[in-house]
Parts: sequence; structure tokens; C-alpha cells
Amino acid sequence: MKDNVLGLTVVLADGRVIRTGGRARKSSAGYDLTRLFVGSEGTLGVITEITLRLHLVPEATSAAVCSFAEMKGAVDTAAAVIQAGIPVARVELLDEAMVEAVNHFSGLQHKVAPTLFFEFHGVSERNVVEQAEMAEAAARENGGTGFEWALRAEDRARLWKARHDAYYAALALRPGAKGWTTDVCVPISRLTEAVLAAKADLAASPLKGALVGHVGDGNFHMVYLVDPARPEEVDEAKRLADLLVVRALEVGGTCTGEHGIGMGKMAYLEREHGEAVEVMRDLKHVLDPMNLMNPGKMLRA
Amino acid sequence: MKDNVLGLTVVLADGRVIRTGGRARKSSAGYDLTRLFVGSEGTLGVITEITLRLHLVPEATSAAVCSFAEMKGAVDTAAAVIQAGIPVARVELLDEAMVEAVNHFSGLQHKVAPTLFFEFHGVSERNVVEQAEMAEAAARENGGTGFEWALRAEDRARLWKARHDAYYAALALRPGAKGWTTDVCVPISRLTEAVLAAKADLAASPLKGALVGHVGDGNFHMVYLVDPARPEEVDEAKRLADLLVVRALEVGGTCTGEHGIGMGKMAYLEREHGEAVEVMRDLKHVLDPMNLMNPGKMLRA
Repeated sequence: MKDNVLGLTVVLADGRVIRTGGRARKSSAGYDLTRLFVGSEGTLGVITEITLRLHLVPEATSAAVCSFAEMKGAVDTAAAVIQAGIPVARVELLDEAMVEAVNHFSGLQHKVAPTLFFEFHGVSERNVVEQAEMAEAAARENGGTGFEWALRAEDRARLWKARHDAYYAALALRPGAKGWTTDVCVPISRLTEAVLAAKADLAASPLKGALVGHVGDGNFHMVYLVDPARPEEVDEAKRLADLLVVRALEVGGTCTGEHGIGMGKMAYLEREHGEAVEVMRDLKHVLDPMNLMNPGKMLRA
Repeated sequence: MKDNVLGLTVVLADGRVIRTGGRARKSSAGYDLTRLFVGSEGTLGVITEITLRLHLVPEATSAAVCSFAEMKGAVDTAAAVIQAGIPVARVELLDEAMVEAVNHFSGLQHKVAPTLFFEFHGVSERNVVEQAEMAEAAARENGGTGFEWALRAEDRARLWKARHDAYYAALALRPGAKGWTTDVCVPISRLTEAVLAAKADLAASPLKGALVGHVGDGNFHMVYLVDPARPEEVDEAKRLADLLVVRALEVGGTCTGEHGIGMGKMAYLEREHGEAVEVMRDLKHVLDPMNLMNPGKMLRA
């Protein structure tokens, strides 16, 4: 998303109002303040306007779903599709627990197995059919079965429904439970081992949970189902989330691909970026010396 | 290019060595220091290591060339191709002066007219042929003639030779002259008027010059041929370059898409970004209080 932000209007702690970036697709005019404020979690200023880069609705779109006996086959397929240069628009992974959850929650009949959801965009039907066929070949090489693809909007919506219902379906796995969610992002080349480790940790835990991944980016999310009234469950979720991040950092990944640091991941930010966090603190201090902007988030004062 | 920079090692003015970013494709962990240092022109620190995102050599590539009676038709074609969502890998514009220059310099026989050079990448030959055909249709609608495309590497190289020889060919237009080069970038929707204005300014000037554009980004370059020993010529080049930037800013563009600010565009940086330049200065001061890093560039002390 951040790549689609061309410019911002930001109100700074001292009341100055600045405009960053602009409408041009690229610029080398000065420091990239737009990217400094995007993702700063409100700690550097209040963003009051955003200039976004727009994209056309593609000429043609196809969607596909494929399940795998082994999680490894699913992740390897996603990596193979990316590495083959197939311009996949979206590729999402649901683990078997999440698939079972959406089957119950949304009355679907997906095979209960690790499942990939694809979307392809192209200049023609022929082009997106070709992409789906190439993905199918990659899936088959990695043990994929029941590959199903569709062109028509309503068929694509049916194929993708499972993915769109995932979060609430996961909550329904344990009525009354709250979802403890977290995410990491790792290099694609290390995605398989990171996902398999996260699954093994969960399998060895008394907690229920599920995995959903934007695997085209090496980014995946875990949701652990906890009863907030039971501190031991919250502690177990924290332990699993900590293992997840530690493993991601070990393979050159990041402690969060999308969720951000907030309060929960401040220690990981320092572990991931070391002395660079001091530089972040320097920037925070110069732009917000009185620590008025979302204090206590991202950076320890 | 900057979108392919995943991480950096930077030596700061106070001797600290930091690592920014990482190997994951996306991260929300802290401020985006990588993008702060990329394009900072050495004013914030010395970059000693870069982690780049690699891209595959595409499965298939096609190239195309097409000339236009009117500059407007060429620019409108480039915009139409982008806006049609054709995933053009490169689209470059040469004006008639530049085409004449490369014909002389490289012994080519291109029609002396505004000319577009395309490159398309895709998952199959069929796919890149399809893209070339769609571009040809767009070109024809905008008065393009002599559309020629190729798949084989040597044929593509032949088609693109004119573009690759452009700069030295332009210098050869006036033996002994130096090239005064500058660039701007404007929103695609305003590219035609910006290019036409730049051409009209040049036509009304005693100086020779030529235009080459990365028009897919709304970015284009002017080269003015001056005898450095004649101050009035240097002044005229400056006047033309100033007009170019002023017009770019008027249509919501930037004073430089690629070249950067350096010393020559410091005044434009302030015109383009206003108070935001004060914030850039704040960042410079906190990271380099003694102004040791490329002093006198980009920001007035």
C-alpha cells in the first residue's frame, strides 16, 4: 500500500502544516518525507490528507483455488509462482484449521487442507487464463490437487469467499474467545521454513489458532484464540507470538509486515534494527520534542 | 529504482554505523530509514552497503518502435498505453531532433519525427506479442506510423540502439559543445502539455537541444548544447531549464524526477516543498549537526 502513497498533508507537533511528495510518479527532490510519515504510527505528526496513486480496474481478472496435502507444497507453490515471474495480483494461503473454520462458518465445502487462493490480472482473458494455467502447473508440481479457476466475477467471489471470511470464521472456532493476532514477514526463500515452524509451535500448544498468509510477500498472520479472563492463555499466546518473531528475525525477516510496532513489539523493533532505533528516536525528538504525538508507541521514550 | 532498495548500511556523521530495512519484501517495523537515506544525496550519511530486490529476466520480451507526425500523438500514446493497464516495461520518447542526431551519429534510418521506443515483458511470447499489438493499436489511434516490433534479442537491440546512443548523439549535433542536462517529472495527465511547452521554448531559443523522456513515469530530460566559454549561452540554458521547472511545478510536477537537487535546484526545492524543506533541514541538523556530509548540497545551511 505505501507504494501507492504519493503525497501527504501533515500537521506537526509545533503546529506547522506541511505537504510532502506530490502528484508526479517519481521525484528526487529532497528527502522522502512521505515515506518517513507513512508507517510512523502517528508518532511524528497527524496526517490529514493523502494523495494516492490510482490503478485501473484490470481489463481481465481470473481467480483460482488449489489445496495441498502438505503445507510445504502450498508455500513452495506460492514461491514458485512468484519466482517464475507470473504477475500474480494476489496469492493467499489458508492453513487447514482456517479452511475448516470457514467451511463451518460460511457453509463451504473446501477440502480441509492447506489451500492457496490466487488472483491474476491481465490485458486480456487469454492472458489471465494463461497465468492461471501456469500457476496450475506449478501447483501440480508441488502436490496441489483440485485446482479450480474462474473468470466470471460471481464465480471468482465464490472461490475467494473463504479467504474473505477467514478472521470471523477463526473466532467462531471457539465461541466467546478473542483473537490474538500477529504477523511477520520473511524473505520468500525462507517462507516455507517460517510457516512450518509456526505451525509446529501451534500444534505443540494447548491453544487453538490458525494461519493466513499474504504469501506473495512472504508475509503471514497468526491468530491465537484465547479467553482473556485466563491469564495463562494470554501468556501462551504471547509465548507463541514471541517464538514467531524470533524465528522471523533469525531468517532475515521483520517482526511485523503490516501490523506495526505499537506497544507490543517495541522490544522486537530494537532487536531487529539495533542502533538504527536510536536514529529513529533522534527523528522523533527533533519533530516532536515534547512527545505529544501518540506517546508511548513504537519507541521507548 | 528506489523501490528495489530493501536495506542499507549507513555510516553517520558521528561515526555510528546503522543497518536499515532488511531482506523482507515489506515491513512496518519503525520509520522507513531506508527511503530517508536513498536520494538524500550524501547529506545524511555515507551509504556503504545496499540490499537490492532482484528481479528475474522475464520469460519473454518484445520491443517496438513507432514514429509520430506530432509530438502530441507520441505522448498521448504513451499515456494511453499506461492508462490501458498494458504492463509496459519501458516506454521512451525521443523528439525529432534527437532522432536526427542518432541517425547521424549511429548511422540509423529512423524517420525524423517524435518516436516512441517500447519494451514489453511477459510470461510467454504470446503474451508479449499481445502487448505489442495493443500498443500498436493505441499508437495508430494517435497517428503513429511505421510501427515495428521484434522478439529476438538482436532485433530488439537494433530497435533500441537509437535510444541508447541518444546522449552522445545529441552532443555530436554541435561538435565541441557541452550538454546542459536537466529533468522534470509531471503527472501523466499533464505530460503532453509539459512536453509541448518544453519543445516550444526550445524552438524559440537560439540554442540547439533535444528531448528524451521516460514517458511512462511522466519524467523527461532536456539537453541544451552550450559553449561553456560563452556566458550568454549558459544563461540561455539556465533560462530554458528554469522555464521547464516552473511549468512542471505549475502542473503539480516535481523539479527533478531523477537528477536530484544538488546545488542547481535548491531554490526549486523550496518552491516545490515550501515549509516541508524546514523539516528536511531539521532532519539534516539532527543527523549531521556539524554539516560534514556533502555540505552545501540540496539544503541551504
